[in-house]
Amino acid sequence: MTGMSGMNGAQALIRTLTGARVEVCFSNPGTSEMHFVAALDSVPQMRGILCLFEGTATGAADGYGRMTGRPAAALLHLGPGLANGLANLHNARRAATPLVTVVGDHATYHKRFDAPLESDIDALAGSVSGWTRRSLRSADVAADAAEAVAAASTGMIATLILPADVSWSGPAEPAPALPVRSPSPVPEDVITTAAKALRSGEPCLILLGGTVVRRTGLEAASRIAGATGAKLLCETFPARLERGAGLPPVPRLAYLAEMAAPQLAGTRHLILAGAQAPVSFFAYPGQPSSLVPEGCEVHTLAGRGEDGPGALAALADLVAADATGQSRATEQSPATGQPAGRPGLPDGALTAEKASAVIGALLPEGAIVSDESNTSGLGLGSATAGAPPHDWLTLTGGAIGQGLPLAAGAAVACPDRPVIALEADGSAMYTISALWTHAREGLDVTTVIFSNRSYAILAMELERVGAGSAGDAARNLLDLSRPALDFTALAAGLGVPASRATTAGELAAGLRQALAEPGPHLIEAVLP
Amino acid sequence: MTGMSGMNGAQALIRTLTGARVEVCFSNPGTSEMHFVAALDSVPQMRGILCLFEGTATGAADGYGRMTGRPAAALLHLGPGLANGLANLHNARRAATPLVTVVGDHATYHKRFDAPLESDIDALAGSVSGWTRRSLRSADVAADAAEAVAAASTGMIATLILPADVSWSGPAEPAPALPVRSPSPVPEDVITTAAKALRSGEPCLILLGGTVVRRTGLEAASRIAGATGAKLLCETFPARLERGAGLPPVPRLAYLAEMAAPQLAGTRHLILAGAQAPVSFFAYPGQPSSLVPEGCEVHTLAGRGEDGPGALAALADLVAADATGQSRATEQSPATGQPAGRPGLPDGALTAEKASAVIGALLPEGAIVSDESNTSGLGLGSATAGAPPHDWLTLTGGAIGQGLPLAAGAAVACPDRPVIALEADGSAMYTISALWTHAREGLDVTTVIFSNRSYAILAMELERVGAGSAGDAARNLLDLSRPALDFTALAAGLGVPASRATTAGELAAGLRQALAEPGPHLIEAVLP
Repeated sequence: MTGMSGMNGAQALIRTLTGARVEVCFSNPGTSEMHFVAALDSVPQMRGILCLFEGTATGAADGYGRMTGRPAAALLHLGPGLANGLANLHNARRAATPLVTVVGDHATYHKRFDAPLESDIDALAGSVSGWTRRSLRSADVAADAAEAVAAASTGMIATLILPADVSWSGPAEPAPALPVRSPSPVPEDVITTAAKALRSGEPCLILLGGTVVRRTGLEAASRIAGATGAKLLCETFPARLERGAGLPPVPRLAYLAEMAAPQLAGTRHLILAGAQAPVSFFAYPGQPSSLVPEGCEVHTLAGRGEDGPGALAALADLVAADATGQSRATEQSPATGQPAGRPGLPDGALTAEKASAVIGALLPEGAIVSDESNTSGLGLGSATAGAPPHDWLTLTGGAIGQGLPLAAGAAVACPDRPVIALEADGSAMYTISALWTHAREGLDVTTVIFSNRSYAILAMELERVGAGSAGDAARNLLDLSRPALDFTALAAGLGVPASRATTAGELAAGLRQALAEPGPHLIEAVLP
Repeated sequence: MTGMSGMNGAQALIRTLTGARVEVCFSNPGTSEMHFVAALDSVPQMRGILCLFEGTATGAADGYGRMTGRPAAALLHLGPGLANGLANLHNARRAATPLVTVVGDHATYHKRFDAPLESDIDALAGSVSGWTRRSLRSADVAADAAEAVAAASTGMIATLILPADVSWSGPAEPAPALPVRSPSPVPEDVITTAAKALRSGEPCLILLGGTVVRRTGLEAASRIAGATGAKLLCETFPARLERGAGLPPVPRLAYLAEMAAPQLAGTRHLILAGAQAPVSFFAYPGQPSSLVPEGCEVHTLAGRGEDGPGALAALADLVAADATGQSRATEQSPATGQPAGRPGLPDGALTAEKASAVIGALLPEGAIVSDESNTSGLGLGSATAGAPPHDWLTLTGGAIGQGLPLAAGAAVACPDRPVIALEADGSAMYTISALWTHAREGLDVTTVIFSNRSYAILAMELERVGAGSAGDAARNLLDLSRPALDFTALAAGLGVPASRATTAGELAAGLRQALAEPGPHLIEAVLP
C-alpha cells in the first residue's frame, strides 16, 4: 500500500538515505527486508552490494566510512543477522566510524506471536550503537532515517530497526537531510593548559588518535614537537593513519604492555589528542592495567566529538609563538616529513620479516592497507615507513575477521586506489567469504595471507599470561596445521585468482602481478 | 596462583563440568581464555575441539546436545566471540537444547579501563540464555558451573561469564554435580480436558513437537490417533524428529502459510503436545499471523519443561480404554508404523527432485540428517519417509548457517552413526569453515550442497510478500551466480575430499562412496 506520493516506507527510507549521501548499502537481506530490496530499483542512486555473511556487510561499511568520512548503510536480517554483524560493528564503534545499520524486523503486529526468528534485536543493537530507533509508522521512517544519518555522521553507529509492515506500507515521503553537527571546538583554557605543560620544561608526550592521525593533525603535532621537544606517539590501533614519505612519522604505541612501557617511561605530561589514555589490551597476572607512568599527569586536549586537529593547530600556533619570541626561534622547524626510502627486495625462503620487506619495497603510492596481520606483521611498520604516502587501517576493536571486509569497503569508497589486505590466516577464516564480494564487485584488492598455520598470537599469549608450559590439549587449540588450510583453493572457490609464495621472490612476483592487474587477487605467503 | 588444592578457577571449573558429564568443549578461544585452555591438560576427561569460527562452536554444541540430551560446552572469547556464536545459539534456544556457554571476559579489575575488546557481554548473553551468571570469585566458579549445567540440562542455554582473573586465581575446588530437574508431570485435569476434546466427535488435531517427536511420544500419539481418529502433525521445524520405516509417520506442518492452512483447516480442537500454537514464519501483507483456524479451540497438553511423552501415553491409555469399552474395540490398533520403501534411483540431469530421490534411495540405517536444504529439499520428506529409521534435525530458529556445525556436533555425539548434512549453497557460506572441523576430527559427515546459485527462498519470498516484480537491483541481491561458488575447491581448501555431481547417477555414485568411506566428504549437487 502506498500513499499519494506513490511511495511505501522502504522507498521513502532509501530516498532519504541517498538524499543524505548514503549511497552504498552492503546487504545480506532476508524475507523481512524484501520490500527494501524491491525498492532499490526505484532509487538508482543507491548501490546495493551483496555480501554472503553479515560480518562482511558491516566490516565493509566500516571500511567505506573510514575512507569517506560518510556513512554507508548495512542491511541486516532480524536479530541473528545483526548478531552475525556485531563483531565488525564492535570494531567500527571503536573506530568511531559513521555507519547506518538497517535491521529488518517482523511486522509490528507479528511480534507477539514469537515466530521462530523472533529475538531481542534491541539488546543487540544497543551494545554497539550510539543511536538506536525502531520505526513504528511508515509516515515516520524517513524522518527516523534522516536522524540516523545525522547521528552516524558524528562518528557512531546508528541503528534503525525496520518492521516489515512499516517498510511495505504507506503513505510515506522522503525527509530532507539534517545538518551534521561539526566537531566541537576545544575550549581555549584547555589549550592553554596543554601549552603550560609543554612550556614546563618537563618531559611531555602527545598521544594522537582518531581523526588527528591524518595529514593536518599530524603536521600540527609535528610543529609542536619541533617547537617544544615533546614526543609524539600514535594510539596502538588507529582507525586510519596517514603515513609514508613526506608525512610526519609518528610511531604507534606498542600492543604489548612490556614494549609500550619504555615508549611511555619518564613522561611527566601525557597530552591526549583524539586518543584515550593508554591501557593494556588484556590484563596479565601481576601487571597493571593502566600504562600511564606513575607521577604522570594526563591532559585531555581533545576527546571524542571534539575538533582534535583544530586544537592541535591552535596549540602549535601558541607554542610556536613562544619559540619565535625566544632564542629558540632559529631552532623552530616546520613539520618534519618522513624521508622516502624502501627496503631492498630480499630473496630466499620466506619469513615474516622478508614478507614485510617485500611489501615495503612494492607498496604503491596511494595504497590503502587493511592490516590484520597480527604477529606476522610486526615488521611492517618499519618496512613501509618510507614508502609513498598511503593509509593504514587497523583492527580498532580487536575483534578478528575485520580485514577482508574492511578492504572491500575501502575499495568501494576509493575505486581509483589500490587496496592491500594483509591477513593472518586464523583471522582470515572468520569472514573468508568476503573474497566473493571482492570478486563480485571487481574490487582492486590484493590480499596477502600470512600463513603460519597457527593462532601464533595465542601461543605467545599463553606464555605471557603465565599459564605455564602448554600441554598437548592446549596446543591442539592453537594449531591450524591439521589439516593445513589451502588459501589458493579457498580463493578459487570464491572466484578470486590466487597464487602461493614460499620464497621472497615468489611473493614479490605475485605482488607485482596482482598490483599491475585490476580486480582482486590473493597470495598465500607460506611462513615457517 | 592456586589454593591448597593446587587448582585455579579454570581447573576447578573444567573438573566440575566433566564431573557433571559435560565432556566436550567446542572452542574458539582468545587471550582471556588461555588459562582455561591451559587447564585442559590437567583434565583429560574434557575433549577440546577447535572451531575456526564461533558459529561453528555453538552450532556443534547444539548438534551434540540434540543427540545426547546432555550439554556440551562452547568456549567463546569476550563479547565479539559470543556475538559470532549468537545466531546458532538462537537456533539452539528454539530447539530447547541443553548447552553451556563459557564466555571469557577481561579480568574484573580491568573492566573499568574500557580496553578495545570491552563490550556489553551481559546484553548479548541475555538475548539467548535461560540462565546467565558472571563468576566474580575463583572460590565460586565451580558452584556457578554446577548450576549452569543443571540449568542447561532442563533444555536451555546457560551462559557462564568467566573473568580472566577468576580463571587464573585460586584457591578453587570442583563442585559436585547438581540434580537435574526432570520434566514436570502434566496435571491430570489437563489430560482429561484433552481426552474430552478427543471424545467430542469434533475434528481434532494433535500438533507434536519438542521431545514428543521421538519414538515413545510418536507411538503414544499414534495410539491416540488410532483410537480416536485425531489427525497428527509435527511442528514445522523439530529439533530432532525420529522417522523412517516402522516409526509412526507424522507429516510436518508446512513452512508456507498457504500450504499449512489446508493441513489445519476444519480443526475444531488443536491439542499442543510439546509444540507451540502454529504461526506464520513471517508476516505477509493482508495475511493473518496465527495459523489456528477460526473457531478452533487450542488445548496445551504439554508445554516446555513438561513431560509431553508421559502426558501422551496417559492420554492414549485413557482414550484406548474408551475404545475398548465400546464397539470400536476391534478397530483399535496399536501404533501404526511407516511401511519400508525407497524411491528408485533416477537418472539423467540432476534436479532437486532427483537429488531427493537419490538421498531417499541410499539413506543408511541410523543416519542423522542435518537438514538446511531449504527450497531445494522440499521433496526430501516424502523421498525418505520409508527409509530405515533415522533422525532428522531441522533449522529450529531460522537463522541460517546451522547445518554444517550441527552435523559436526552430531557426529561427535554419535561416532558410530553416519551423519548427512543437506545444505543450501547460500546457507552453507555462513559457516563454511565448519568443514575444517569435520576434517580435523575425522568426523563421518557427508555434506551434500544443493547448488542452485541463488537465494532461491528469497526470490520466492520476494513474490510472496507482494513486493512486485523484481528489477535488476533487487535480483542482484538474490543471485549467487557471479561468480559461481565452487564448493569442491572450498572443501579442498578446508581439507575435505569433494566431488561434483551434475547427473543423478553422479550424485548416487558420490554418495555411495562417501557413505562407504570413513571421515568427511562433500558432494556439490549442481542444480538447474
